[in-house]
Amino acid sequence: MKKELHFERAEFAARVAAVKSEMGRRGIDILLLSEPANHNYLTGYNAYSFYTPQMVIVALNHDEPIWIGRFMDRISALMTTYLTDENIRAYSDRYVQSALSPYDFVADVAKELGGEKARIGVEMGGYYYSARAHADLVRALPLAQFVDADVLVNWIRIVKSPAEISIMRQAGRIADAMMERAIDTIEPGVRECDVAAAVYHQMMSGTPEFGGAYACTPPYLCIGERQIAPHAAWTDEPLPASTTINLELFGNRHRYQVNLSRSISVGKPASSYYKLADVVVEALNAGLESVRPGRTCSEVEDAFRHTLARHGFEKEARLGYSIGVGFPPAVGERTASLRKGDQTLLRPGMVFHMMPGLWLDDVGITITQSFAVTDRGHEPLTSTPRKLFVK
Amino acid sequence: MKKELHFERAEFAARVAAVKSEMGRRGIDILLLSEPANHNYLTGYNAYSFYTPQMVIVALNHDEPIWIGRFMDRISALMTTYLTDENIRAYSDRYVQSALSPYDFVADVAKELGGEKARIGVEMGGYYYSARAHADLVRALPLAQFVDADVLVNWIRIVKSPAEISIMRQAGRIADAMMERAIDTIEPGVRECDVAAAVYHQMMSGTPEFGGAYACTPPYLCIGERQIAPHAAWTDEPLPASTTINLELFGNRHRYQVNLSRSISVGKPASSYYKLADVVVEALNAGLESVRPGRTCSEVEDAFRHTLARHGFEKEARLGYSIGVGFPPAVGERTASLRKGDQTLLRPGMVFHMMPGLWLDDVGITITQSFAVTDRGHEPLTSTPRKLFVK
Repeated sequence: MKKELHFERAEFAARVAAVKSEMGRRGIDILLLSEPANHNYLTGYNAYSFYTPQMVIVALNHDEPIWIGRFMDRISALMTTYLTDENIRAYSDRYVQSALSPYDFVADVAKELGGEKARIGVEMGGYYYSARAHADLVRALPLAQFVDADVLVNWIRIVKSPAEISIMRQAGRIADAMMERAIDTIEPGVRECDVAAAVYHQMMSGTPEFGGAYACTPPYLCIGERQIAPHAAWTDEPLPASTTINLELFGNRHRYQVNLSRSISVGKPASSYYKLADVVVEALNAGLESVRPGRTCSEVEDAFRHTLARHGFEKEARLGYSIGVGFPPAVGERTASLRKGDQTLLRPGMVFHMMPGLWLDDVGITITQSFAVTDRGHEPLTSTPRKLFVK
Repeated sequence: MKKELHFERAEFAARVAAVKSEMGRRGIDILLLSEPANHNYLTGYNAYSFYTPQMVIVALNHDEPIWIGRFMDRISALMTTYLTDENIRAYSDRYVQSALSPYDFVADVAKELGGEKARIGVEMGGYYYSARAHADLVRALPLAQFVDADVLVNWIRIVKSPAEISIMRQAGRIADAMMERAIDTIEPGVRECDVAAAVYHQMMSGTPEFGGAYACTPPYLCIGERQIAPHAAWTDEPLPASTTINLELFGNRHRYQVNLSRSISVGKPASSYYKLADVVVEALNAGLESVRPGRTCSEVEDAFRHTLARHGFEKEARLGYSIGVGFPPAVGERTASLRKGDQTLLRPGMVFHMMPGLWLDDVGITITQSFAVTDRGHEPLTSTPRKLFVK
């Protein structure tokens, strides 16, 4: 069976070692990871199977991580991870949506590794760690000590390796191709759903050299009066002769995602809208130019905010967030944000989506930039010009 | 602002009344709903915003449900729900990924409605009700009594109204168009990612009369040796001159999803593979013909299994599950399954995806049918022929 691994074994080993080191520091014997991005990061596992219970266990006394999932996904574990057979543990269909809990199965593996009284880390705030998952585990392991280890792995993921940055550059090229395709497609009379169709086609087709993958969220096509509803669904309506569109698109390569937003005016926009675009680009560039290792996220946001304020504007939402490997429902790593007060120090290999959306009463504009922190500053991961597009 | 409601107000009112009636029966004062499909079902809300905490509260002493979400998604609530302003409660960005918990905000609304000592239902097993969400609510409402009301609304959703069935027929037509497009696209030398691209394009483009929406999972393109890995990701590889492909596709209209799987042989298949297809179709038809109101899910599975057994085959996974409105990560309602022992009585308006996949050592075949239970039997929701396709 052909293995589909996108990183060297040594890189996976270094990731697992970093996690174990942090576990040791916190006195955690066994780490139960529910977040699919963490499964992928530590083992390579890639399948859309996490909607049934799935865990990766890292134990201080066990060399490799252990993957636990549904019986029919065992083949995906064999194909996409480096794990040896004994570290791939699949539960049978009897556990799926029935009275039995797959977490009993997980608890048995935890006991096998660490006994009844282990100190167990869990991801309390993870999307795939439900209140019931936790209750079932606590019931099955009454003598264990549970501690919240949410985002423990995410904070290790925040600094990307050269191999990861290389994949994210490909994701960025896909995002550029998607934006170009969207701008080509947008015309008065074209249905909104057909713009979405073109964008999705390009997301998967990628480039002639490499294909793409599904992103962590749908693309956001905020058109006309729905411009001010950033997560709205598109409709069947044809585009009018004159409107404004905010597009947020996501290139995805091997589960690594790069975000890209632009505003597009159909028909000539008001001069005040051009002016708004100029302000956003100026503030975005000020933010980007302030990026360098050793600065804090808060300092970068400050550079942006000061420029914005000079023009009489302010932005309520945070300016950006760390991105990387992800699965639905969201790519955000839930670690550092580019926002006032975030004291995270920038380090080479960190990747952020800086997204200055400016929303006035009934129009909005969004011109964004995903970038990697480098030794001396930043590297943009997309090359779409930072400007308002007019069709 | 244009409202985007796809059902009559009276239909929403009947849904809320059914939920309140069940709450009354169980002695629940306040129901905190975390599942996005339940938000949509009871209020119409439709935006991809549930990756930050979002709740709909139904209280016995309050007429309308109350939507709680992030400040920037308030506009989507105004646009896509019938709720009055006072029942749309948005929390500020200060609560997003910070030390504050949005569940404190939720708890305050719960207290306003039901006081400190209410009996509160929560969805313990929901995808968007994390262990932390529950812990935060329990901390903020120390005198309240929490009860597990998981899938309470889902069991009401299981019987679809004529208006819902009508939307699901449209979703079925989109699924048919997607399958046709996939079969047209599949040729030796075409990259797997380009097959995915064509399928996605059709999913959103829909038909000339109506467009589509993103499904609850990516389409599954299980090609060659990955045929036996049902949730694998596609690759960049070109299709070989001879292979077999299992496609699971999802048409989606206004968040209602209809599933459709077919096997496609590139090049002439072995006669044993044709034979396997015949067996699956015969058993599928036997299952479908056994559907009528008053029968149990288990009896339908039995009709299928007996036919399969006559040919010497058996299937480990369940035969199907209830489908309807949904959001990522999965469309399954977590209610009735077509499986041995499920005593759910079939009723007109229920909708299932019957999916007899047969997996031998290294090949699999999957020919499925989504259907609605009618007064006398079943109505297929897709019209793609039930057969093995050969290109």
